[in-house]
Amino acid sequence: MKLSTPHLLGIKDLVQEDIQLILSTAKQFKEVLQRPVKKVPSLRDVTIVNLFFENSTRTRMSFELAEKRLSADTLNFTASASSVSKGETLLDTVNNILSMKVDMVVMRHSASGAPHFLAKHIPAAIINAGDGINEHPTQALLDAFSMIEKKEKLDGLKVAIIGDIMHSRVALSNIYLLKKMGAEVIVAGPPTLIPKYITEAMCVKVEYNVMNALAWCDVANVLRIQLERQNQPLFSSLREYNLAYGIKRSMLEKLDKEIVIMHPGPINRGVELDSDVADGPFSVILNQVENGVAVRMAVLYLLANREN
Amino acid sequence: MKLSTPHLLGIKDLVQEDIQLILSTAKQFKEVLQRPVKKVPSLRDVTIVNLFFENSTRTRMSFELAEKRLSADTLNFTASASSVSKGETLLDTVNNILSMKVDMVVMRHSASGAPHFLAKHIPAAIINAGDGINEHPTQALLDAFSMIEKKEKLDGLKVAIIGDIMHSRVALSNIYLLKKMGAEVIVAGPPTLIPKYITEAMCVKVEYNVMNALAWCDVANVLRIQLERQNQPLFSSLREYNLAYGIKRSMLEKLDKEIVIMHPGPINRGVELDSDVADGPFSVILNQVENGVAVRMAVLYLLANREN
Amino acid sequence: MKLSTPHLLGIKDLVQEDIQLILSTAKQFKEVLQRPVKKVPSLRDVTIVNLFFENSTRTRMSFELAEKRLSADTLNFTASASSVSKGETLLDTVNNILSMKVDMVVMRHSASGAPHFLAKHIPAAIINAGDGINEHPTQALLDAFSMIEKKEKLDGLKVAIIGDIMHSRVALSNIYLLKKMGAEVIVAGPPTLIPKYITEAMCVKVEYNVMNALAWCDVANVLRIQLERQNQPLFSSLREYNLAYGIKRSMLEKLDKEIVIMHPGPINRGVELDSDVADGPFSVILNQVENGVAVRMAVLYLLANREN
Repeated sequence: MKLSTPHLLGIKDLVQEDIQLILSTAKQFKEVLQRPVKKVPSLRDVTIVNLFFENSTRTRMSFELAEKRLSADTLNFTASASSVSKGETLLDTVNNILSMKVDMVVMRHSASGAPHFLAKHIPAAIINAGDGINEHPTQALLDAFSMIEKKEKLDGLKVAIIGDIMHSRVALSNIYLLKKMGAEVIVAGPPTLIPKYITEAMCVKVEYNVMNALAWCDVANVLRIQLERQNQPLFSSLREYNLAYGIKRSMLEKLDKEIVIMHPGPINRGVELDSDVADGPFSVILNQVENGVAVRMAVLYLLANREN
Repeated sequence: MKLSTPHLLGIKDLVQEDIQLILSTAKQFKEVLQRPVKKVPSLRDVTIVNLFFENSTRTRMSFELAEKRLSADTLNFTASASSVSKGETLLDTVNNILSMKVDMVVMRHSASGAPHFLAKHIPAAIINAGDGINEHPTQALLDAFSMIEKKEKLDGLKVAIIGDIMHSRVALSNIYLLKKMGAEVIVAGPPTLIPKYITEAMCVKVEYNVMNALAWCDVANVLRIQLERQNQPLFSSLREYNLAYGIKRSMLEKLDKEIVIMHPGPINRGVELDSDVADGPFSVILNQVENGVAVRMAVLYLLANREN
Repeated sequence: MKLSTPHLLGIKDLVQEDIQLILSTAKQFKEVLQRPVKKVPSLRDVTIVNLFFENSTRTRMSFELAEKRLSADTLNFTASASSVSKGETLLDTVNNILSMKVDMVVMRHSASGAPHFLAKHIPAAIINAGDGINEHPTQALLDAFSMIEKKEKLDGLKVAIIGDIMHSRVALSNIYLLKKMGAEVIVAGPPTLIPKYITEAMCVKVEYNVMNALAWCDVANVLRIQLERQNQPLFSSLREYNLAYGIKRSMLEKLDKEIVIMHPGPINRGVELDSDVADGPFSVILNQVENGVAVRMAVLYLLANREN
């Protein structure tokens, strides 16, 4: 089986079969990662460049480890040590790198749509590692993988995405994926952080009361408050955000069921998530990170082998 | 055959046979780079440090890929993540790195002559990846390689180097190389960007009218306007530079011949080069980038094997 | 034989046998590093992350080379290209990285005690590559290795540590190690750079006259004046520091014996050490750097093989 697309630009472009293929391939790679020898020769002789125009720790490292576990040759580009400031266009930068016989491009960029633009103009496979406030498809795939580990299937699963929906590429990719796979999705949080018309545009319900969202859902995917993007404050203070929308242990204890707690990281402890929830028995946050390497191995492997 | 020099500090120090040896070795490596398996074991057990005191994207990546294709072990040093600010001398920094049993040093530095100074004091082979406004020898070698691909030989070839000659290490290395190989060279551009006495010092003619330069030449090597070095403006505005000295498609169409268009990158589109020229049929700009990896493999290979 | 500890947090926690085991293992690795083929397969399938929250050149490169010589997979994290500023806790950052199946953590941090805190909470082996003004254990081990190379044994050796004792993690680790191995230690320098009560706390004598210290010792370990930490000046000027406490050739010539001159680098030439001393016949400064790779290989190797 092959992916229907030569790139991974967003979940929006995938069909159900693509998602199933990635998740089942990731399951095999996760088994490889439990072994003492975690390396497979699958992408020997494939060269991959990690183009990170935005700073990143976990996503860049996760991709780099996935590439190394697949035996690919890797090249790292970070904007801070580059000549980006010299006024070159993005297309020229990437075309130059590809002229050096690079096969795949993993890319994070602050501009929404940057990888889609590139995909129209260059021959290499592009994997979107986050573009502005648009999509972060490998995050949604690893979230789905982690949900299935706990809840067996996505079809019919009730997922609440809680927090800063407006600025979140994680939210958008999750909504696309969950809808395609038959899950029910609601978004919850303060009105200022939830886009108007999201119900019409994405067919998700909006819930402004977080406790109601928790009472309804099987899985709560709690998003990070992006402190670094708060030039104009969208809520009164972090403390008040925590009081009104933060997930606390007492809230979970009031529920008559176990729900899965997810977070894409980095966590603001005591803001969107209290420590006793983040580190509690329902949290799968570190499983998400572990699954990220397996999912990224699957994506790289499937895209590299699409040609043959 | 062996190189006459243990370092590649500048084209100035090479004899014709050195240049021919590097170019013919690069031709073989370019063939390797067309294969599915692009790696050769030539420099297994050689450790190379890439010492970049100035930011760089394409040159650093090109060297790093060349090293990896040759199976060398590589170590990257970028000033932005280093302790350069702690007041250590350049010689101490490099001697420390060499004490760790590093075999070769690829080095970019903002001070003209920095690699020459080092070469007098340390035992390892040094490859100059650009020193201040002095030389950028591997760029001149890849430019020569690209000219030969299109025009068969350098002897008798008419090359115009156009733009900011004054601040360009690419210009100086190109002039040295082309002169040594029997090409005819003129430099063209605004008087404020062309050093006085260059005719006497380098035996190149100066042409202030770019159209005349194009009419005369077989190859136009168009240099980048280094916006980041323009503290004191040397021309009135970018728009006026483009009007007076930029290469436009209409200019090429007036010529009764095909000329090769080269540029070391990064391009300022719409300043020194219009997009329809940069991406046009006469441009070999991306070929230059591709050839860069092969040329750098040749330089590293020949210097590493000089001892044996 | 095995180390008594699963981490290398500081020399304080090691017993004499640990130190002897590391030094004798390092001796074998130093022999490996003299061979043309410097790589051994010992840590194939071990993944090591270098977490540098403070900038560093020599220590980071030395660890990275040690890891590569041992065939480990390495991952680099530098604060300048990371998401540290996003407000994540240190423990979350490290737990995330470990979830990606990383086996060992080499860590430098500006907070004294950061690696000790981590060691209590995570399962991976941690190697302290410098924590604040606390310890820098691999530096003390390579210093000890270098002393033994010149003076055969530490027992009974007279070592003077000279300069900025107060801000130096090198001083503290050296004092711990030398005391454990039976050496005699004094510290020398200006009163403002020597902590009060150090005689009581560490059982070392204090000598404010550097010439007296030199006359007494077999080995002078001269510390760097940390210019970058001098927000409030602790001595009048660099020139006066050099006059009163800098080591000059004339001082060594007055002695009726050869003493070993050491320095952890980077050197401030003309401040704590004059060039004719740093580059003179008694200096082992570059040997220290060379030995650093062998010592770090030994530490990584012994910690990785402690489990089996």
